[in-house]
Amino acid sequence: MSSWGNKVKISIFGESHGPAIGVVLDGIEPGIRLDMDELLLNMGRRAPGKDKAATPRKEADMPNILSGVLDGVTTGAPICCVIENTNTRSGDYGNILSKPRPGHADYTGFMRYNGFNDIRGGGHFSGRLTAPLVFAGSVCRQALKLQGFKIASHIYSVNTVQDKPFDPISIDDSLIERLNQKSFPLIDEAVENEMRSVIESARLSQDSVGGIIECCATGVKAGLGSPMFEGAENVISSVMFGVPAVKGLEFGAGFDITKMHGSQSNDPFKYENGKVVTTSNNNGGIIGGITTGMPIILRAAIKPTASISQQQSTVDLQTKENTTLVVKGRHDPCIVSRASVVIESALALALINL
Amino acid sequence: MSSWGNKVKISIFGESHGPAIGVVLDGIEPGIRLDMDELLLNMGRRAPGKDKAATPRKEADMPNILSGVLDGVTTGAPICCVIENTNTRSGDYGNILSKPRPGHADYTGFMRYNGFNDIRGGGHFSGRLTAPLVFAGSVCRQALKLQGFKIASHIYSVNTVQDKPFDPISIDDSLIERLNQKSFPLIDEAVENEMRSVIESARLSQDSVGGIIECCATGVKAGLGSPMFEGAENVISSVMFGVPAVKGLEFGAGFDITKMHGSQSNDPFKYENGKVVTTSNNNGGIIGGITTGMPIILRAAIKPTASISQQQSTVDLQTKENTTLVVKGRHDPCIVSRASVVIESALALALINL
Amino acid sequence: MSSWGNKVKISIFGESHGPAIGVVLDGIEPGIRLDMDELLLNMGRRAPGKDKAATPRKEADMPNILSGVLDGVTTGAPICCVIENTNTRSGDYGNILSKPRPGHADYTGFMRYNGFNDIRGGGHFSGRLTAPLVFAGSVCRQALKLQGFKIASHIYSVNTVQDKPFDPISIDDSLIERLNQKSFPLIDEAVENEMRSVIESARLSQDSVGGIIECCATGVKAGLGSPMFEGAENVISSVMFGVPAVKGLEFGAGFDITKMHGSQSNDPFKYENGKVVTTSNNNGGIIGGITTGMPIILRAAIKPTASISQQQSTVDLQTKENTTLVVKGRHDPCIVSRASVVIESALALALINL
Amino acid sequence: MSSWGNKVKISIFGESHGPAIGVVLDGIEPGIRLDMDELLLNMGRRAPGKDKAATPRKEADMPNILSGVLDGVTTGAPICCVIENTNTRSGDYGNILSKPRPGHADYTGFMRYNGFNDIRGGGHFSGRLTAPLVFAGSVCRQALKLQGFKIASHIYSVNTVQDKPFDPISIDDSLIERLNQKSFPLIDEAVENEMRSVIESARLSQDSVGGIIECCATGVKAGLGSPMFEGAENVISSVMFGVPAVKGLEFGAGFDITKMHGSQSNDPFKYENGKVVTTSNNNGGIIGGITTGMPIILRAAIKPTASISQQQSTVDLQTKENTTLVVKGRHDPCIVSRASVVIESALALALINL
Repeated sequence: MSSWGNKVKISIFGESHGPAIGVVLDGIEPGIRLDMDELLLNMGRRAPGKDKAATPRKEADMPNILSGVLDGVTTGAPICCVIENTNTRSGDYGNILSKPRPGHADYTGFMRYNGFNDIRGGGHFSGRLTAPLVFAGSVCRQALKLQGFKIASHIYSVNTVQDKPFDPISIDDSLIERLNQKSFPLIDEAVENEMRSVIESARLSQDSVGGIIECCATGVKAGLGSPMFEGAENVISSVMFGVPAVKGLEFGAGFDITKMHGSQSNDPFKYENGKVVTTSNNNGGIIGGITTGMPIILRAAIKPTASISQQQSTVDLQTKENTTLVVKGRHDPCIVSRASVVIESALALALINL
Repeated sequence: MSSWGNKVKISIFGESHGPAIGVVLDGIEPGIRLDMDELLLNMGRRAPGKDKAATPRKEADMPNILSGVLDGVTTGAPICCVIENTNTRSGDYGNILSKPRPGHADYTGFMRYNGFNDIRGGGHFSGRLTAPLVFAGSVCRQALKLQGFKIASHIYSVNTVQDKPFDPISIDDSLIERLNQKSFPLIDEAVENEMRSVIESARLSQDSVGGIIECCATGVKAGLGSPMFEGAENVISSVMFGVPAVKGLEFGAGFDITKMHGSQSNDPFKYENGKVVTTSNNNGGIIGGITTGMPIILRAAIKPTASISQQQSTVDLQTKENTTLVVKGRHDPCIVSRASVVIESALALALINL
Repeated sequence: MSSWGNKVKISIFGESHGPAIGVVLDGIEPGIRLDMDELLLNMGRRAPGKDKAATPRKEADMPNILSGVLDGVTTGAPICCVIENTNTRSGDYGNILSKPRPGHADYTGFMRYNGFNDIRGGGHFSGRLTAPLVFAGSVCRQALKLQGFKIASHIYSVNTVQDKPFDPISIDDSLIERLNQKSFPLIDEAVENEMRSVIESARLSQDSVGGIIECCATGVKAGLGSPMFEGAENVISSVMFGVPAVKGLEFGAGFDITKMHGSQSNDPFKYENGKVVTTSNNNGGIIGGITTGMPIILRAAIKPTASISQQQSTVDLQTKENTTLVVKGRHDPCIVSRASVVIESALALALINL
Repeated sequence: MSSWGNKVKISIFGESHGPAIGVVLDGIEPGIRLDMDELLLNMGRRAPGKDKAATPRKEADMPNILSGVLDGVTTGAPICCVIENTNTRSGDYGNILSKPRPGHADYTGFMRYNGFNDIRGGGHFSGRLTAPLVFAGSVCRQALKLQGFKIASHIYSVNTVQDKPFDPISIDDSLIERLNQKSFPLIDEAVENEMRSVIESARLSQDSVGGIIECCATGVKAGLGSPMFEGAENVISSVMFGVPAVKGLEFGAGFDITKMHGSQSNDPFKYENGKVVTTSNNNGGIIGGITTGMPIILRAAIKPTASISQQQSTVDLQTKENTTLVVKGRHDPCIVSRASVVIESALALALINL
């Protein structure tokens, strides 16, 4: 289902080529003056066409708030935001009704919905559905910011090209602010050219590349979360895997922690300015499902864009024969940069539910 | 919270050194004859002391079913299982009340519960609480088996020593059955000695090591799950991160998929014996949150056991000073082998909720 | 919160005088061809101005389906319906910002939302929010109808004037069809004049009256529901009390059962045409939280419309003084007839979640 | 399902004639010193045999707390309480396996669980399962008491014999304390003899009687609850109908409010000692799903005990013939007095979830 949450509930709707997509966000506290500039900046970071590396399809992505906000201030009632679909030529997708595109949800959606799902542009499975998620996450972020939380992310890698990682102990507000402005956020901007050339090279060969987003939250107070099933990692992951293309998630040292010894991976405690901190942060700010007060650090693996222009092997579900298909049109060869704000939004939605 | 689930709900209770631990499992369908031998085999695979590499503390872990089962058959009513704690010398942990152990949830529990949490042996955060999870998961597995699902796992790595991975396309029933019997499950048993010597070496230096569990489910029919927040990966991850020590989770090619091109990562479809299959399985049996019918493949990163006997830096929460501590007693230097059945159980609990 | 449900989830949004109200309905099965005529008939039965007894404010209530339906058939994706607000003169309510109207949620909303709630026309608490509930319930009804369920209701009473009750053992399809067409549904239409004169008399004295809706579901198969907290009565009541103005709910003989003896209230079983039935239905088709297969019978008490034109005592929340207020404008003196389809819709939403 | 809740989750398990019944209560805040005397007093008020009017079966009902409480103080971890079944002669119920008892859940349980449900003594549907609910509700009450909430109830009626109602505006602490001590709680104790003679008369004719429990909560602060589906009435009702035998529920003036005019039913506001109060309380302390700060008043209809000793008509599910049955043994002819503390417990569980 496309509904989730406990303290703050989200319900996302819409299809890529339907009249509109949108979201209902229920449980946001009253009295928050929304910063629409920041919200539109976030929407813009996700939208294609804002960056050289993005898909050529133009999407306006103008959020239309129907409820829950009065004179720019949240009322406590559910917030509904609708985003009109403006560029919905269904003809582009005519051939995929019987031939599922590899890597896409065409086939699984067909099996799940007995063939009744709207398959145009991926329908409800389209990456376009991350637009309402960014809207919702941006509202949550603004609520969290009032409590001192800050969230940022950067492109940790594109294919094999890596950025510098976050310092897990201390992340400057100035870095967070810089990253929050960027549609291609990097800690070490010197790697941008190399990343872009890997993407351009994929584009030229009608292929695509993936990458990793590293995301952090600072200002998180200690003691949020729960043991077992409502732990911070559980809640974060249950939103994060809702972002299409995410195939892996790790916290702190993540998979690399398995190569450490306990004497290294255990984060020692010390007092610093009267506050308990850890001198390393291999646990990524979460132990036993509960926040330690150190930065939350996570990395999400984004698979290469499923949309490519090369010929691919598939089946014809009507003739029940093996066949091939070529998906026409120009495709975004790398969604990793656009995914950064989506991952931040998913983290915000999770944190407001702890 | 320690309660979770939708179609089948679980509620786990107990503390390491309290009178008992246990679980209520609500929603299991009626009419399933429980295979108690298999269930006890699973409990045994998790229990310490069954394997050379395990913790010396002996735990009987005998499940006492109080409800929901009549003459060995499920009734449809909630199944409550209580496991008595038999070896609960609180004295061992006397010094940790004021000095949180690094890597453990002592400090985060203290912050979450204002110091009222039972800290003896880790209390409700203890790895011992995975025993009721294995009980519950084993019941779910038996229900799933009636639908054709099979679940297995192996030790993918201990520290830097690696087993062979699962073949993601085809996993033999005979391999599954062999792994299901083992307390130290390996696809390539030739690596056992090297793994055990890494563990023994950690033990001798009063240290610990971690590793990775790779887990699969076969016989999963296509079309299970949902887009966005109730996708198969979301549901699996929201249980999996409830297993203490899990710091990362990936599906299919996981983080490595980020280094592929789309032309490689997209799993092509073909008909095989009248059934749609994919010729690779980089997506780990799940696309768009919905099962493809191919094996579900996941890997969970298990951090090194937090319990080590070396001196560690910490704080004294009462004197508010930096200090050190040594946790006496013998500790399990590697829980990875015991974690295998816990990961399988978590997967079963998730799959029955799709 | 305005979100609810398990198998089928609903999220209602909007305020009386905002740009639009609406609903997201997630979990409706794919492949249902929506009968828009029936749906609009239901919307019309709820809308004011369609009946002589209704409020003079005209509401178009035209549902605009944004998602989840393709070529008139459900796709399985979330269905979002938006209903524009066309007649939203805020001036009418200028004086209530500081003076809460007795019987309305102005004061409780103020306390719940720290004064940030949109108070114009009752905001999110407005009876107008039952329009999206009727939309959602109508979709659920059509899905249920394919399983053989039929739902109907009638005006059991207005003030002290009573209609005949449903025969709890057997309810004709022809009666159900007749009631489903009516904006003032009665079993015994001879009482209509007396009911209308009670309403008109209230209107003339600038007052209002309440009443009782009796609602039934037939074709319900035995065995739906659960013991304890997810029983049929629990699920039904947890939607039903979301209908504004409902202050009581009873099943079967309801409060009158407390005056029976067990030998009378126990519904005896017998075989009839090879099927188990009961020869009385004091339990209203539900025993132990589970359906018996007999008609579900319930009655909901609808309090008199809170909107009246008489002078009333209240407080001024700004000056913190006792005062009076007169709410100008013409008001609907009785919403009971319009509530019938709302109660039916709530029942449908509940039943689809069993 | 027998699991419920959001902020505080409950999971009830057990069968009447199984080894034990019990409950897991997850989410109770840490640091509450449990008053075991008060808790056992509540358990005793529910237990049969404590009062002249009760069932002759003796139940020890000694709660054994397995987790979540350390040295008498809640830890924040899930609280599990197990109550052993001591008097479980299955022989008494031998004949009901094929002949469902009218008024009981034997038949609906059979249909729901395909005949696999434990039918001895009603199994999981037994009224005995209210014992763990009283345990859980008593813990919730103690948590609520620290916030100023007080809960009490009385026998509003037995059959046609009525007690005085609560004054909905003001309920003395001394009355609450008196009622809290009683196993046959009445505001006007002069009606006790008449009520008891009605019960005794039913007993002599091997029959049973029902009645109404009126329950109140005082000290409830204004602003708790939500519009629509998580309103106070919704949450209360979704627990209350989990109490076996409840067939109706009303708040404030309840069904009688339908016979008022709006000018009477609207509760006028005034300032009293600087606080907003209402001068009547026809809404029972809840408007728009949100508490007003006035006492919450509700009444629950309890049907006559289904267990009677008279011969009754039923079916034989094996031979598929109409037949009769006589349920041997002595039965409690009226559970209304014992239901009072159950209703109070259900209210406590609901209120802690607002």
